[in-house]
Amino acid sequence: MQGSGALGSYDPEQFQGLCFHQISGKFADGSDSPRAFLERCLDTIAASEPTVQAFVSLQETAARAAADASTARWQAGQQLSAIDGMPIGIKDLLETKDMPTEMGCEAYRGNFPKNDNAMVWALRQAGAIILGKTVTAELGGSHPGPTTNPFDVSRTPGGSSSGSAAAVAAKMVPAAIGSQVGGSIIRPAGYCGNFALKPSQGGLHRGERQTTSMSTHGPHAASLEDMWQVAIEIASRIGGDPGYPGLTGPMTPPPPIRPEKLIFIETEGWATLDPQSKTALETLLTHFEQAGGQVLRRVDHAAIEAFEQATSNAKQVANAITAFENRWNHRNLVDRDAAGVSARLKQTLAAAEAMTPADYQNCLQQRARARDCFAACAPLADAMITLSCPGPAPVWLGDVPGQPLAPRPTGDPLFNFATSLTGAPCVSVPMLAVDGMPVGVQLIGQVNEDARMTAMAAWLHQNIAPVRVAAA
Amino acid sequence: MQGSGALGSYDPEQFQGLCFHQISGKFADGSDSPRAFLERCLDTIAASEPTVQAFVSLQETAARAAADASTARWQAGQQLSAIDGMPIGIKDLLETKDMPTEMGCEAYRGNFPKNDNAMVWALRQAGAIILGKTVTAELGGSHPGPTTNPFDVSRTPGGSSSGSAAAVAAKMVPAAIGSQVGGSIIRPAGYCGNFALKPSQGGLHRGERQTTSMSTHGPHAASLEDMWQVAIEIASRIGGDPGYPGLTGPMTPPPPIRPEKLIFIETEGWATLDPQSKTALETLLTHFEQAGGQVLRRVDHAAIEAFEQATSNAKQVANAITAFENRWNHRNLVDRDAAGVSARLKQTLAAAEAMTPADYQNCLQQRARARDCFAACAPLADAMITLSCPGPAPVWLGDVPGQPLAPRPTGDPLFNFATSLTGAPCVSVPMLAVDGMPVGVQLIGQVNEDARMTAMAAWLHQNIAPVRVAAA
Repeated sequence: MQGSGALGSYDPEQFQGLCFHQISGKFADGSDSPRAFLERCLDTIAASEPTVQAFVSLQETAARAAADASTARWQAGQQLSAIDGMPIGIKDLLETKDMPTEMGCEAYRGNFPKNDNAMVWALRQAGAIILGKTVTAELGGSHPGPTTNPFDVSRTPGGSSSGSAAAVAAKMVPAAIGSQVGGSIIRPAGYCGNFALKPSQGGLHRGERQTTSMSTHGPHAASLEDMWQVAIEIASRIGGDPGYPGLTGPMTPPPPIRPEKLIFIETEGWATLDPQSKTALETLLTHFEQAGGQVLRRVDHAAIEAFEQATSNAKQVANAITAFENRWNHRNLVDRDAAGVSARLKQTLAAAEAMTPADYQNCLQQRARARDCFAACAPLADAMITLSCPGPAPVWLGDVPGQPLAPRPTGDPLFNFATSLTGAPCVSVPMLAVDGMPVGVQLIGQVNEDARMTAMAAWLHQNIAPVRVAAA
Repeated sequence: MQGSGALGSYDPEQFQGLCFHQISGKFADGSDSPRAFLERCLDTIAASEPTVQAFVSLQETAARAAADASTARWQAGQQLSAIDGMPIGIKDLLETKDMPTEMGCEAYRGNFPKNDNAMVWALRQAGAIILGKTVTAELGGSHPGPTTNPFDVSRTPGGSSSGSAAAVAAKMVPAAIGSQVGGSIIRPAGYCGNFALKPSQGGLHRGERQTTSMSTHGPHAASLEDMWQVAIEIASRIGGDPGYPGLTGPMTPPPPIRPEKLIFIETEGWATLDPQSKTALETLLTHFEQAGGQVLRRVDHAAIEAFEQATSNAKQVANAITAFENRWNHRNLVDRDAAGVSARLKQTLAAAEAMTPADYQNCLQQRARARDCFAACAPLADAMITLSCPGPAPVWLGDVPGQPLAPRPTGDPLFNFATSLTGAPCVSVPMLAVDGMPVGVQLIGQVNEDARMTAMAAWLHQNIAPVRVAAA
């Protein structure tokens, strides 16, 4: 099925997504306009959406009106921000005042609270165009929606930010908002060839979605410049979560910073990874060394080994924390509408209801230890690096009636649990192709180093040759 | 107007509220029962509610069914907890699956999400009877509901937990749940003669109400035993907020612990306090010293002076933090239904919308400094002590059309802002009467010393003579 999606086979050197920052310079003199930009997005959506299925709702009429207003602002030199007029997709977990918020869950069909999530509020203040709601796996979990990978219709785009990932990859929008608890921003970015930022815990305001302790909201984009610009325009207006200072950094994309040393972390993902993807990352690390960089591994320092060991059961710890935190909320939902909730979610709920507060406290202690071990690695190198996802996106053609549920139809966040536990910023950089599909590389900084990681991602992307590995 | 409420003039030595723990021992042999207990509560409500106006909704039929089920469990020796069968009121900010959640706000009239807040979920698991929703000031702010002080109908019960405070004082229920951001648990407890616990920040799960960083939910009760039991039964089932270990302590009320040294803190409240209330607290502190205790003040140690100074603008800092955190949410509300929101709340929103993320970060830094200064006082004494409220509850007879809005119709949280900023546990103890009205005393521990403060409150209440001071 390789290359059977709208975009065909992926080559990280050739692929060019839809950038806003390259175009917005033409808005002032009228040689291009937000309205014209939007119309091109709508044309792409009309052509690709029947296959990609990235959106659950679209606001074409309101978007056109917003684009016309933005066009007038740019022509008057009164644009509200650098992303004034940028069409953006919003993951359908976040509330929007003009579209329902159904969260990929039958029980929320028709749910329409008529509020803007804090981040949506900030984006509108910046003049961005809230074009539509993107498909999410059910309640941000693992039960998938209909979205397909734009590079191969038989494969998942990843999840739970499935629609945001696919909409950016398919050039429908220059940026879209995702959210991550286990690996729901970085993994689909890796599978779809996007840039993406999972901000430091608390770095970007989650609005009404504050009921889990390790979730974050962040942008997917086709360029690092648009990714950063969206993040900083949000942060400068709404800040971070309650009690957090919020993401800080320059109001324009940070200039590249060359990392001298990177720590390669295996996480739980490396041991079972396919050989082609291993070769791809190892080759990229060799390119980095050939450019004068140094790569440290678990054998090189006791602190790195300690972090690997402290996160050797990150999947179990992270999943247990989040399942427990969602327990009362999901119980309410199942009590209210059992038929409207997937069997996958009910399995998770049953496991959570077998936990005690003491079990949860134990998980929090393991998370605290992982964070201590992570911080202890800070003096050793500029950042950590690993894959964004366990190789190319897996094939997913739907549940088979009568068969056991596939545990991870949107792919396994094995490379994400350890870095999600840390609460640290992660940037996914599209620098690898395996079997004609994107495989992202994840750059991980210490807490609140979001801008620094973006700057180092820029340097790597500009200076290190990407890697293509064919199928076995 | 003194003594014109249902209960007449208040005497801390004579007043006896409605206790559950003293009665539940009779449930096993059938000499009393949860159903009979409930019927007595309903009788009291029928008699007093027309004046007190503590409830916005009552579930009498469901409560009777729940009480019958509890009666059967006790008689079979299968009670779910020590509070099985306890009728409880829930502040109408918290969601309940069988009653609307209108939050004292016209814009939420008819709001009925059909979910149980995490704490309500835990209370039902413990067999408690969710009897009704209690009046809250609008959205937990300062715009008051109709509730009157049970000791004087012309006075406020305090707020924003107005109905929970009044329902317990009026002996309608043995316990009720309140919530505090500035001073909304401790202040009304002080005005109404209740015991109350504002738990350590994050100590008791706030459920869907996670969008401000210094709010807590906690019980009012007529006895310290019931107060603790309600708190620990909740914590043992649902734990704390996401990411927090949650309140811990014994599964029965902790035995009294004698404090040797107490730090008296003035806060912003002392300078403008009425002379009678000053005399009342000073006399109580003298009683403590006569019993062998030691009282430290700001003149006695630089660390205490530093804490007083670090919280000398606690009112401004605390209000700014919360107003900023509510900004996007209140903007959504006003955009949706401007007529359904009070002028008071709109004033707060306007001030919040003039703030920048940098202003907010500055407030967070001041809060962090207050917390550091607070922790620095820990080695000096067993606890801090001050008033729960600035003297007896003020008279409040309603806004006067055409006049400026009274800034604080539910009383001023001047004694609460400093302790709310710390995130530390506070226990209100009813040990003072001024002008025939209750004035609470607030015992403040270091973070997670909730059980220890409850134990010291027990010692003070049992061993130190309460104080009555007449009107000037």
